[in-house]
Amino acid sequence: MSTSLTDIGPHHDIVISTRVRIARNVEGYSFPHKLNDDTSFALMKDVQTAVKAFPEHQGDDYSFVRLKQLESLERQVYVEEHVISPALLANAGRSGFFYNQTKGTSIMVNEEDHIRIQNMQQGFQLEAAWNEADQVDNMLGKKLPYAFDDTFGYLTACPTNLGTGTRVSIMLHLPALTLMGHIDGFIQAAGQLGFAVRGLFGEGSEYMGNLYQVSNQITLGLEEHEIISRLEDVVVQVIQKERLARRNLFDNKKIGLEDRIFRSLGILSYARSLTWKEAMQYLSDLKLGTSLGLISTCTLEELRTLMELIQPAKLQQHCGKLMDETERDRQRAELIRCKINGGGTQHVNE
Amino acid sequence: MSTSLTDIGPHHDIVISTRVRIARNVEGYSFPHKLNDDTSFALMKDVQTAVKAFPEHQGDDYSFVRLKQLESLERQVYVEEHVISPALLANAGRSGFFYNQTKGTSIMVNEEDHIRIQNMQQGFQLEAAWNEADQVDNMLGKKLPYAFDDTFGYLTACPTNLGTGTRVSIMLHLPALTLMGHIDGFIQAAGQLGFAVRGLFGEGSEYMGNLYQVSNQITLGLEEHEIISRLEDVVVQVIQKERLARRNLFDNKKIGLEDRIFRSLGILSYARSLTWKEAMQYLSDLKLGTSLGLISTCTLEELRTLMELIQPAKLQQHCGKLMDETERDRQRAELIRCKINGGGTQHVNE
Repeated sequence: MSTSLTDIGPHHDIVISTRVRIARNVEGYSFPHKLNDDTSFALMKDVQTAVKAFPEHQGDDYSFVRLKQLESLERQVYVEEHVISPALLANAGRSGFFYNQTKGTSIMVNEEDHIRIQNMQQGFQLEAAWNEADQVDNMLGKKLPYAFDDTFGYLTACPTNLGTGTRVSIMLHLPALTLMGHIDGFIQAAGQLGFAVRGLFGEGSEYMGNLYQVSNQITLGLEEHEIISRLEDVVVQVIQKERLARRNLFDNKKIGLEDRIFRSLGILSYARSLTWKEAMQYLSDLKLGTSLGLISTCTLEELRTLMELIQPAKLQQHCGKLMDETERDRQRAELIRCKINGGGTQHVNE
Repeated sequence: MSTSLTDIGPHHDIVISTRVRIARNVEGYSFPHKLNDDTSFALMKDVQTAVKAFPEHQGDDYSFVRLKQLESLERQVYVEEHVISPALLANAGRSGFFYNQTKGTSIMVNEEDHIRIQNMQQGFQLEAAWNEADQVDNMLGKKLPYAFDDTFGYLTACPTNLGTGTRVSIMLHLPALTLMGHIDGFIQAAGQLGFAVRGLFGEGSEYMGNLYQVSNQITLGLEEHEIISRLEDVVVQVIQKERLARRNLFDNKKIGLEDRIFRSLGILSYARSLTWKEAMQYLSDLKLGTSLGLISTCTLEELRTLMELIQPAKLQQHCGKLMDETERDRQRAELIRCKINGGGTQHVNE
């Protein structure tokens, strides 16, 4: 399963990505927050040995990265690319990860748990993401003694992950439900069904660009296929509601909708300084306008790529230099202007 | 003194226009609010006779308009063009005006006073405006018995106009002082010196597009040349302060300033609906940007013309139809887009 730019998955106008992560711990080691430099390193070596022993040389497709060997900017880039979690970064002195870019799989070591297997797919691809993560889990489990309890299932550092240790997340773009003021209702309803709605970077992160990450809160007492199937039901319903809201806006509030979308296009085409948050909001409007056929300045895929590229660390990497916030806001505006205007600077004396 | 588009007067980047109006009343008639249909008509005929008797056939250059013979839209267009006052409109059943478009002179009959002579010049032209209005006043005064008192001077319906009956106004564009938050201080200081600061259409009208009309409050106890000379001093000072503020913004806050100006350009280039007030604000930004050499999309003169054209009545006249507010906002956005983009619709599916 490749994640190339052309493979953006089903329902890609609403579903940005699908992610499965499995939490595992290894017998004989304390939970990561209790490990010292030596024991955390020993654990990393054990995981490395297990990865190297994957059948059919599959382990060769993984690169190994120790966070303390990375510059701060590189670490942040991996977080922005959702390859690793902010929690892995928080334990940067003792953590690392194995990464198979082609398959979109990362195996984080010494995050909150010893091992966090994650697979990420573009668009709405629960089965593909689950199959890939599950397969890696099985291969690792053959070489490492997972901490397991007959009553509680897989043991985890935090009880909210006990049982299957599995969290399945879908990142959704819901501009119409947001505009119509229906998001709070959706978040409440999802909560009652056992699903949490979070921002771009999980727990505690802000909602930006009308992007919402839905994931299961319950990991205990349900089989993995039940978790996946329930999340799928919820997401299918939300997709339908978002489509209905888009159609309603288009049919009944077209002037206001067009005006909003074109103003956002105007601001992105001309602004000299853009904060991350406001750029995400305007790009969200452009995505909505594009999906409704109101504008064709960029494709949905180009807008998705632009949303990724304007993140603080990715932007600095793109520009090849460290920048403070003021300079980032300027460069962000310039990058967007360039992409949207095709490099031209209209009506401008500079 | 012509008011053609090329003759925009000195300091035209800050001073929009200069206006002198002289209030006069005619002996033998009650003040206008006490006149009935017959007596107000009789007064109009008297003024007409006096205008026709101007030396060297100057009266031939005046057209006469009775407000009750105009459609509501036409009346409002004259107000938006500052040819007549809102107060003349309020007495539309019994009022009229003589208008010399070439010289920018109007003689309103049955406004608050029997006669209001007004001359308007583009840019900063106090002397020209005064000379023209004064000359018309002298010509009228030779044929009509003005109500005059040795103690109070020219008598007027409202005591605030007693004495000279002369009000001199300058319309200023002060975007930098507004942005820097110095406008309230300016209004207070002007008040202490006996000058009132009002919006686009005088008393009670809103400040729009950072346009401020400064005029003398005192008409009694000062000679006309003193009124004019004091207003000139105040305006010269404000012009200097505005220039200084623009330079300060350019030198010290250039990123923010450019960003603001270009965003306004972006919104005006793309919006599908624009209220009058917000369009004036964005056009004000474009004027500032143009005068600082940051953009060259339109000339200052084109922006001034656009500010006039987007007023509610002028806009309906331009489009050749009556429109409700929603439709006006759409047509306003389209007109501005057309003028700014040179008629092109960029990146647009329609």
